[in-house]
Amino acid sequence: MTTPFRPCGLVTLTTDFGHKGPYVACMKGVILSRDPALRIIDLSHETEVHWPAEAGFWLERSFRWFPIGTVHLAVVDPGVGTGRDIIVAQCQGHVFLAPDNGLLGSMLTRERDVSIVRLDFTKLGALGLSPPSSTFHGRDIFAPLGADLASGKRRPASLGEPIVPSDLVPSWLDDPEVTSTQIRGRVVTFDHFGNVITNVDGALLEQFDRPWVRIGGREIPVRRTYGEAEPGEYLALINSFDVLEVARAEGSARAGLGAERGAPIVIFEHDA
Amino acid sequence: MTTPFRPCGLVTLTTDFGHKGPYVACMKGVILSRDPALRIIDLSHETEVHWPAEAGFWLERSFRWFPIGTVHLAVVDPGVGTGRDIIVAQCQGHVFLAPDNGLLGSMLTRERDVSIVRLDFTKLGALGLSPPSSTFHGRDIFAPLGADLASGKRRPASLGEPIVPSDLVPSWLDDPEVTSTQIRGRVVTFDHFGNVITNVDGALLEQFDRPWVRIGGREIPVRRTYGEAEPGEYLALINSFDVLEVARAEGSARAGLGAERGAPIVIFEHDA
Amino acid sequence: MTTPFRPCGLVTLTTDFGHKGPYVACMKGVILSRDPALRIIDLSHETEVHWPAEAGFWLERSFRWFPIGTVHLAVVDPGVGTGRDIIVAQCQGHVFLAPDNGLLGSMLTRERDVSIVRLDFTKLGALGLSPPSSTFHGRDIFAPLGADLASGKRRPASLGEPIVPSDLVPSWLDDPEVTSTQIRGRVVTFDHFGNVITNVDGALLEQFDRPWVRIGGREIPVRRTYGEAEPGEYLALINSFDVLEVARAEGSARAGLGAERGAPIVIFEHDA
Repeated sequence: MTTPFRPCGLVTLTTDFGHKGPYVACMKGVILSRDPALRIIDLSHETEVHWPAEAGFWLERSFRWFPIGTVHLAVVDPGVGTGRDIIVAQCQGHVFLAPDNGLLGSMLTRERDVSIVRLDFTKLGALGLSPPSSTFHGRDIFAPLGADLASGKRRPASLGEPIVPSDLVPSWLDDPEVTSTQIRGRVVTFDHFGNVITNVDGALLEQFDRPWVRIGGREIPVRRTYGEAEPGEYLALINSFDVLEVARAEGSARAGLGAERGAPIVIFEHDA
Repeated sequence: MTTPFRPCGLVTLTTDFGHKGPYVACMKGVILSRDPALRIIDLSHETEVHWPAEAGFWLERSFRWFPIGTVHLAVVDPGVGTGRDIIVAQCQGHVFLAPDNGLLGSMLTRERDVSIVRLDFTKLGALGLSPPSSTFHGRDIFAPLGADLASGKRRPASLGEPIVPSDLVPSWLDDPEVTSTQIRGRVVTFDHFGNVITNVDGALLEQFDRPWVRIGGREIPVRRTYGEAEPGEYLALINSFDVLEVARAEGSARAGLGAERGAPIVIFEHDA
Repeated sequence: MTTPFRPCGLVTLTTDFGHKGPYVACMKGVILSRDPALRIIDLSHETEVHWPAEAGFWLERSFRWFPIGTVHLAVVDPGVGTGRDIIVAQCQGHVFLAPDNGLLGSMLTRERDVSIVRLDFTKLGALGLSPPSSTFHGRDIFAPLGADLASGKRRPASLGEPIVPSDLVPSWLDDPEVTSTQIRGRVVTFDHFGNVITNVDGALLEQFDRPWVRIGGREIPVRRTYGEAEPGEYLALINSFDVLEVARAEGSARAGLGAERGAPIVIFEHDA
């Protein structure tokens, strides 16, 4: 039995639209046209373009910081207007709408308390939506449905037929490989400081006494916080979203390491 | 008789200020200082710097997605503090404030149900505004007037003397030239994906059976959506704002074509 | 006796987090989790990375444009998780939370009507905060405390012991040197247009009849507004935040002058 969804009137938006053009704004205009009392938070519009993995990764690590009852819309959607599906998921009292393109694959497989439906496109007219454009479902489907869910006009389960996580398009990133001597993970993305964000959960490092990481030809120690390294020095740490991150004190680890999205990172036990 | 303006409490902001510095934030601070109940949506702050054509273009194509009764403030204003005028326009139940520098020239000429006044600067004191700075009318004039319009304290017609669209500084972009064999339009701007946005309305293409476009030395077919091209391939399409756009599947058409703002694009009938 | 703080329900956010990743959004999620009625304005998230001087500079010049009773959170915090303190300051009816790293050093020394406490970290549990992460006090301390101050649940003076401005880590930028023949200031930052923003207050220029500036090997006249220079020409002006700024008509002074953050600028009397 999934935790029931009780909408709190809040909607978050996660896209790869950037800040040029009126794309995000039109989604907000549609949302407030349907219910002017809703609140909207931009989660990020600078996720890597056409790379659903980052949007899903940040949603999985962030959603707990929003009030229970929030509706999260995620639109990284290179397949818009083709046959790809849209899914409506409930998880721990939150609701998520996203294309079925791997964006939520990792989260919905890993989390407990999950239920999912596949959006029934034949119902859109009955829900009061105009026929959607071929290129902007964010505005034409996600925004109005998200508004109706957030204002309590529609229940998630009413929007389509139930499916299970294994029915979904899988994540674009494999989970880390864990052996008794090392962990092999992947770079998911970067932040504004040039910190390199990986898909390695902090708890995985508990098997080591002196964990170090290997990335971009360097070996780097795991520390507690940024200020524990000298300017220019590299460090790894378990960040505030509980994943392994590689940083460079007063610099950009991304630039210094030449690390690319999807690149491997290895965690190992350093000699005493 | 113009549709009467019934304010819904929503204000949109369109500028070329970017996201560095507190410029946009101060406009919002002023708006909420005058009426804390107002809602504000950023339309975009990354319109091309000192190029009013883009701001006007997106407003014309976007305003219908906001609730009737919205006030739209547009501040792309290289002439701030010189003798340029400010206009207050009503159109289909929305209100627009902008410098009279061509920003709204195209929209107010093309749309129906338009009425315009030229702001009477001598009234600003009586409206409760402090003497404006010479360099930031967005904060000192647009924000407080926009707030007063959005909260219903002032009516648009009370702010100055009526003018007609032909009194305005004309648009920076000519309308497309249409002949029986081709259409010649212009590049207005680009989006975050590198898609090339033109001023050619989708309806103009109905005269062709197999429309193709010529831009940057290439000939490119018109398709329905992004997913219909192979990675790396160029395509044109009528986008969700009903204008012609040139894209590159999983790439940047802007970079690939080397297209500049204002560059010509030709639409023609392709041989069968 | 400091002006009492009467919260108006508004919170501003100033950080160097940029717009990649969910960092700012999670702060907002926490704020609205504690009080869904609060309003939030982004002041800027593109202040220069790890350079608290810019964040403090803009806050000092901007706060008057927000309603009395606003709570301003400033998180440019390279020392997060180390021994650095957090301060809660009242100034003219506004409240400011920032790391004690020089960010507010200039403002709190220069302004009147100031009172400050140093946050007592031992009280955080009693205030209902979870133990903070080592790397994201913006989300774990600033956001929940800011929300409680903005909603009136806590009073600023209750959060720690009083200190005086001279107890603070000093500003990263010295105040300008003023002699009878010249003023020597510093470049604080740049805006989206490439305008060069200095720490020289406009009032300081009143000692000159024909003030000019010297920067990056050039001598440039002070004018009234941007439109008074020809395209490509440099000009200086007292901007709408009452500080000296160097601009280039229809261009970027930053790029043209090669000016760096912290670079010197000299104001002098030009020959008649």
